[in-house]
Amino acid sequence: MKLWGGRFSKKTAEMADDFNASISFDSRLYRQDIQGSIAHARMLALQGIILPVEAEEIVRGLLSIQEDIEAGKLEFSVTAEDVHMNIETFLIQRIGETGKKLHTARSRNDQVALDIRLYLRSEAEIISGLLIELMTALRDLAHEHVDTVMPGYTHLQKAQPISLAHHLLAYFEMLRRDWERLKDAVKRMDYMPLGSGALAGSGFPIDREVVRQELGFEHLTRNSLDAVSDRDFVLEFMSFGAILMVHLSRLSEEIILWATDEFGFIELDDAFSTGSSIMPQKKNPDMAELVRGKTGRVYGNLMSLLTTMKGLPLAYNKDMQEDKEPLFDSVDTLKKCLAIYTPMLRSARFNVDRMYRGAARGFTNATDLADYLVTKGMAFRDSHSVVGQIVAWCLEREKSLEEMTLAEFRGFSPLIDQDIYGEIKLKACVEKRSLYGGTAPEAIKQALEEADHFLQKAAAIIAG
Amino acid sequence: MKLWGGRFSKKTAEMADDFNASISFDSRLYRQDIQGSIAHARMLALQGIILPVEAEEIVRGLLSIQEDIEAGKLEFSVTAEDVHMNIETFLIQRIGETGKKLHTARSRNDQVALDIRLYLRSEAEIISGLLIELMTALRDLAHEHVDTVMPGYTHLQKAQPISLAHHLLAYFEMLRRDWERLKDAVKRMDYMPLGSGALAGSGFPIDREVVRQELGFEHLTRNSLDAVSDRDFVLEFMSFGAILMVHLSRLSEEIILWATDEFGFIELDDAFSTGSSIMPQKKNPDMAELVRGKTGRVYGNLMSLLTTMKGLPLAYNKDMQEDKEPLFDSVDTLKKCLAIYTPMLRSARFNVDRMYRGAARGFTNATDLADYLVTKGMAFRDSHSVVGQIVAWCLEREKSLEEMTLAEFRGFSPLIDQDIYGEIKLKACVEKRSLYGGTAPEAIKQALEEADHFLQKAAAIIAG
Amino acid sequence: MKLWGGRFSKKTAEMADDFNASISFDSRLYRQDIQGSIAHARMLALQGIILPVEAEEIVRGLLSIQEDIEAGKLEFSVTAEDVHMNIETFLIQRIGETGKKLHTARSRNDQVALDIRLYLRSEAEIISGLLIELMTALRDLAHEHVDTVMPGYTHLQKAQPISLAHHLLAYFEMLRRDWERLKDAVKRMDYMPLGSGALAGSGFPIDREVVRQELGFEHLTRNSLDAVSDRDFVLEFMSFGAILMVHLSRLSEEIILWATDEFGFIELDDAFSTGSSIMPQKKNPDMAELVRGKTGRVYGNLMSLLTTMKGLPLAYNKDMQEDKEPLFDSVDTLKKCLAIYTPMLRSARFNVDRMYRGAARGFTNATDLADYLVTKGMAFRDSHSVVGQIVAWCLEREKSLEEMTLAEFRGFSPLIDQDIYGEIKLKACVEKRSLYGGTAPEAIKQALEEADHFLQKAAAIIAG
Amino acid sequence: MKLWGGRFSKKTAEMADDFNASISFDSRLYRQDIQGSIAHARMLALQGIILPVEAEEIVRGLLSIQEDIEAGKLEFSVTAEDVHMNIETFLIQRIGETGKKLHTARSRNDQVALDIRLYLRSEAEIISGLLIELMTALRDLAHEHVDTVMPGYTHLQKAQPISLAHHLLAYFEMLRRDWERLKDAVKRMDYMPLGSGALAGSGFPIDREVVRQELGFEHLTRNSLDAVSDRDFVLEFMSFGAILMVHLSRLSEEIILWATDEFGFIELDDAFSTGSSIMPQKKNPDMAELVRGKTGRVYGNLMSLLTTMKGLPLAYNKDMQEDKEPLFDSVDTLKKCLAIYTPMLRSARFNVDRMYRGAARGFTNATDLADYLVTKGMAFRDSHSVVGQIVAWCLEREKSLEEMTLAEFRGFSPLIDQDIYGEIKLKACVEKRSLYGGTAPEAIKQALEEADHFLQKAAAIIAG
Repeated sequence: MKLWGGRFSKKTAEMADDFNASISFDSRLYRQDIQGSIAHARMLALQGIILPVEAEEIVRGLLSIQEDIEAGKLEFSVTAEDVHMNIETFLIQRIGETGKKLHTARSRNDQVALDIRLYLRSEAEIISGLLIELMTALRDLAHEHVDTVMPGYTHLQKAQPISLAHHLLAYFEMLRRDWERLKDAVKRMDYMPLGSGALAGSGFPIDREVVRQELGFEHLTRNSLDAVSDRDFVLEFMSFGAILMVHLSRLSEEIILWATDEFGFIELDDAFSTGSSIMPQKKNPDMAELVRGKTGRVYGNLMSLLTTMKGLPLAYNKDMQEDKEPLFDSVDTLKKCLAIYTPMLRSARFNVDRMYRGAARGFTNATDLADYLVTKGMAFRDSHSVVGQIVAWCLEREKSLEEMTLAEFRGFSPLIDQDIYGEIKLKACVEKRSLYGGTAPEAIKQALEEADHFLQKAAAIIAG
Repeated sequence: MKLWGGRFSKKTAEMADDFNASISFDSRLYRQDIQGSIAHARMLALQGIILPVEAEEIVRGLLSIQEDIEAGKLEFSVTAEDVHMNIETFLIQRIGETGKKLHTARSRNDQVALDIRLYLRSEAEIISGLLIELMTALRDLAHEHVDTVMPGYTHLQKAQPISLAHHLLAYFEMLRRDWERLKDAVKRMDYMPLGSGALAGSGFPIDREVVRQELGFEHLTRNSLDAVSDRDFVLEFMSFGAILMVHLSRLSEEIILWATDEFGFIELDDAFSTGSSIMPQKKNPDMAELVRGKTGRVYGNLMSLLTTMKGLPLAYNKDMQEDKEPLFDSVDTLKKCLAIYTPMLRSARFNVDRMYRGAARGFTNATDLADYLVTKGMAFRDSHSVVGQIVAWCLEREKSLEEMTLAEFRGFSPLIDQDIYGEIKLKACVEKRSLYGGTAPEAIKQALEEADHFLQKAAAIIAG
Repeated sequence: MKLWGGRFSKKTAEMADDFNASISFDSRLYRQDIQGSIAHARMLALQGIILPVEAEEIVRGLLSIQEDIEAGKLEFSVTAEDVHMNIETFLIQRIGETGKKLHTARSRNDQVALDIRLYLRSEAEIISGLLIELMTALRDLAHEHVDTVMPGYTHLQKAQPISLAHHLLAYFEMLRRDWERLKDAVKRMDYMPLGSGALAGSGFPIDREVVRQELGFEHLTRNSLDAVSDRDFVLEFMSFGAILMVHLSRLSEEIILWATDEFGFIELDDAFSTGSSIMPQKKNPDMAELVRGKTGRVYGNLMSLLTTMKGLPLAYNKDMQEDKEPLFDSVDTLKKCLAIYTPMLRSARFNVDRMYRGAARGFTNATDLADYLVTKGMAFRDSHSVVGQIVAWCLEREKSLEEMTLAEFRGFSPLIDQDIYGEIKLKACVEKRSLYGGTAPEAIKQALEEADHFLQKAAAIIAG
Repeated sequence: MKLWGGRFSKKTAEMADDFNASISFDSRLYRQDIQGSIAHARMLALQGIILPVEAEEIVRGLLSIQEDIEAGKLEFSVTAEDVHMNIETFLIQRIGETGKKLHTARSRNDQVALDIRLYLRSEAEIISGLLIELMTALRDLAHEHVDTVMPGYTHLQKAQPISLAHHLLAYFEMLRRDWERLKDAVKRMDYMPLGSGALAGSGFPIDREVVRQELGFEHLTRNSLDAVSDRDFVLEFMSFGAILMVHLSRLSEEIILWATDEFGFIELDDAFSTGSSIMPQKKNPDMAELVRGKTGRVYGNLMSLLTTMKGLPLAYNKDMQEDKEPLFDSVDTLKKCLAIYTPMLRSARFNVDRMYRGAARGFTNATDLADYLVTKGMAFRDSHSVVGQIVAWCLEREKSLEEMTLAEFRGFSPLIDQDIYGEIKLKACVEKRSLYGGTAPEAIKQALEEADHFLQKAAAIIAG
């Protein structure tokens, strides 16, 4: 008989049990469930709702169950539906009558809300740490490559020469926002829902504050109806995840491009590459491709839960059981993608020579020529046009700007002088963009200092 | 050493292996993989690429592997990455050198394309059958309820009286379209990709036609590059699934509404309901809620693969490994939702009395009064306005139209006569909507005949 | 000729112009574009890159353009592609050569990044205000309905009696989180990108800090590559919007339900309802339905931009032009939905009588009976079971718990005494749930105080 | 006063009118609306429900309204809500009392279902034609490039040499499936819904068959409830569109890659490229980027309507008004993307020399070396491994396979003989893949014949 079966005259159909049960996936929450139950039991005793000795018995029972689960000695049952009822059933089997008192002043609705919050808060911490590790790798690589010149692209067409460090630090910035977004999301996870009961709160004289403190939450949920039907914190986390995957998919796209024979900017380590079952020469950037591909599931999971939550009346509805699998999948995916990325990047070899040669082609210094004309007095819109014509002229002759004679230059504008050659050197093009946020070594050094500072601060937060 | 490891100087990192491997989920395709390999090996022998005795050895080896997998005697390995390499490795372990010949003229790229097509074609057949079962249940219930009058709604406001059979058959129509959409999708699954090699076809003198016939496909894929990088058939199936879930979510919403104390139109069987861990009186329509909730994952899976496929250059990219989990999840979800629905509906009890009383409230016959005025010569737009005023008048007095006296009626329009009372009877309102597609018993009988006819035809197709 | 046409030997095809141009939708940003250009021009003069008199001329020109746009005197041109080039073209037409100097040290890439940030920051402020207005309406209604008892639902089945105020305040909590989420999102909008140039920063000696201050931004963007290719702040806003629509769709679903003849909990004002073209009696909750329906577009817009951004290499790509229409649509939709909601709710009439009667049916006090048995010494799991049997007994006899005699009660458990009748009164059931976050008037009063406090604080923040 | 206002005591709030009205976007359906109304009016006369002279008057009125709309002489009004009520209002203004009879036996619910079906059926035809045009362009280009050798990629790593024609025909296949999917979708659009009334059919003796024939539909909708609440045909079209965008985004990605300085495989015509506002040398593949970017909106629109339709009870709900904007946007987007693609492709220049040189690098003939060893008697798995080692050896020495001496080859396997050099020539590698679906000129010629045949058949269908 089901723990809730009193009112029913007929057993649940077996297929309904299977369909309904969440134990196949929510068993993952056993630790949080037990942690929450222990805090609840202790509070019940504190408040005189059960006896201290009963609480002790319950706690002992729960801990032994946890031990046995971890030792693989217990098998969850579909008939008991979910992790909550499974553990309660084990408890009653173990300690008898006292076990039946645990669920006093509690419902599965507030219980599961607690379990997910406990789970996600701790996973968020891990993800936060993995973000910092990847950012650290980017920072370290940037330190190495302040002076590595590469072509910067827009529209995947060569645009202006930049520093590889600058490129890597662009991703540092993205991840920094992710890290901050996650921190903000965690603030909204940090509410303790127990005491909300099924939907209306509890009539027992429980003490929510005690439970909150024992479980280390910052706040109490403020409205019982909301507390049991709120999955905002999951959705916000999933949105964070989707945006993070935007970033990782972009970096992956670049790594895949850079690893082509045509670009040749990067060589991934054998340890992070794979081969082909048929083509013996292949060395594929599978990890980067997989990360890019996994963007789909993280977006899909967000869409999945948004869809599920749409239009649900208050308070708890069974639909909400569908929150867990997409959440677990997103958490696992984010962790795996971040974890693989750090060593993959650190072990990769950047082909600085190919990068430099790439920057030297494609008129990446054309803007500097236009800017030069501006400093000589021409209006920018005109200088842009003149340089456009120069480029067209060069393209026809397969020349670079550097290869033009001064006479040729002056054929386009008498404002051009010998000093132009210094202005359009790659190194000069990079170095003059020294404003805050720019690609010049000077600017990058400042960015690296800020990155160091951020990582120190983050380390302090994590430590503390 | 990996089967593809010849070119590599370093082992794959363990975490890269874990990240990269698909065996944890694609092992589900072992049967299709073996089926395809058997057909391939036999063809290789037919074409003289391997010896007949080698083909026999391979086939025997593969069948013994299948047997052992099904007996739970074999454990897949993450190092062998995927189901294809795992089985090939088992084969080489079992039959030695000959096993190394199986992968001649084949790549994992065309192999996995085959496996998924085989898998999905057969799952589509099962889903097709489940659709027919649910449609049959709807048809049977409709047969019982031709004369059951209930309120029809628009905007969830009472609109006009309808027959419950008519309502149920609306879902029959939706599922019928689903069934046809799936049939169309299956046409595009029915292409045999083997022989496409990694991307460019094969240089060996293989015979694709022989393989096609052995595996029972209708066509050969027409372009090798396309064949290995095409997942349209998965996307089309997932779209079908999303639209099917629109329908099931709508039906679920209605069942949940109808099962409320307020509507009281339906009582689900205890066998398909569940209770609450805290509230002893609860009997919840969990199955319907879960189906509604699972709409999210089926949408999400579609969005997941659409995202993954976006912007991938030809031909195969590792991103595409991400096709399987969402597909499997959608297939499983659709099967479970359809399977639970049929017995849940069949075992439910419709409260025809509540339905009738519901139809009698809310001025569901107001349109008939307006139509009546039209038949008496008033323009519809005017009659609509007059009846609007009558309703307003009744609302103030808490009267129904039937309760108005003739004098009261004539106060609004002298066109109204004694015969109005016959026209606005619920039964009459339903019966006069007898056009093809309408709610009158007459029209429904025709619809039921067509439904019978469709189900017979479908049964014939399935059988044949 | 295009402003960038120097290098091209052929005109853009007309259909390519049409396809490429964004002016049909980004013209909406004209005000931000001009505001940014003015700040840029002034800074150029301050830095001696252009003359003060040139800056003045430019500013005057831009202001006159703005005036003419607002007076409907200027027509944008598709050939000039976008709002930036259109305005620059107008400027050159108006003030001649000097106009050609405006684009010095700037690119459309940093310019559009600025425009969207300016736009969204100001729209976010409006939305923030609309949220507060709706929260205020909910708070005011809650003040009126502290003592209005209604049935609380889980699974849309009656669960426990609650206060309508409590129900309304659940939405207050959701919107409060939305408000805070938006505030956090705004922090990440508040970065000034100008000076990032096309991607690498600028070689001109501009002063980003001056521009930042003039435009009232909190920070400078930190990496030029990132600054021109970052749309995180749009995605984060869209995620905020999607979660907000979860809440509004849920509230809408409830209003639609409550407005049915069956529930009858609410009557919307005629001013916020519409009728039917055919059925004269209809009064439909169209606004609530539309809000629920518009959830789709807000989700869709998020998915749209997530898809667009997936896998884009750095820095700017034309794909990113697709950020604007979904953003504008989400902004407009959120504003409209919030704006309609406040008066719709305020003008609605709650049928407190129907609510009370609804709460009195359906054994909503069964949990209290179970809790009662616990206080008499029975373990909760046993009391739950006993009450389940009592409910089953009552259902057969069409009785409520209140209608049972003490003898009948005691037939189930001798622990039950005369005092049970007091415990299971609706009013008592509500009043005993007085914990923080519960539904008792006492708890609600505390919640209302906190709501008042929050609204005061928010008002202070808004005021500045 | 609203046409439906009889029952209301108060006017709709202005902001509610604005929020509720769909005229700003559904005005696009005026032609379909008038076409449907004409057919309806004629049938009403045929059936004696109105007089023939009244029908004539209505038809004349409607035609004059259409003329005036097209001449820009009529302004739609938000107060009249939608295109249906606007036109009905115009009609009554023009022809007086008779105009009030048009809406007899009809509801906006079946009317709008008709309008969208008429609209989408005709747009589908246009899109179908655009698909054929793009396929024709691909076929024509393939004809030119049968012998153009290029590197084939998997994982964006060079894999095997292929023919450019083969690559282009891969997209032909994708679009062919799109074309067929659309054809299947059109089958399900081809149902005439009029006569379904608001939800229950009509009580008037109308003749649906007559209307069906006049409007050229294949079938009648079969269930009135379903007919007014079914948007499957929109969803199916949007799914078709999403899959089509998968294809166009992939082709776009390749064009963008191929247009890079690094690949250099393609040069887009100036007429289909654009420049930069700051960098004078830039020539960007904006069209391809935009198409890739627009994938987002087509996915988003699908997700939008799927979300909107989730869980709606029968029959019509106002939420469904949200079907139109995403549909219109997807239709417009697909048309624009297809229309731009054909001339962009036709005017592009393929750099066959760069392609050939690309194919000659990267060991694209390694598989052929492995296959060679198989024909000499080595098992494939062993030959794969040997060739892997050869490649590793070459990489260290920066050699290609062709550059190895026979002695060096034989150091790896004595099976290798002089004939190897013929086997690993690029041309030979391509030519031996001559199976159906392969990349050899022979196979491609067959594919081209089939493509020709398909295009002829399609042309016949379109013509006929």
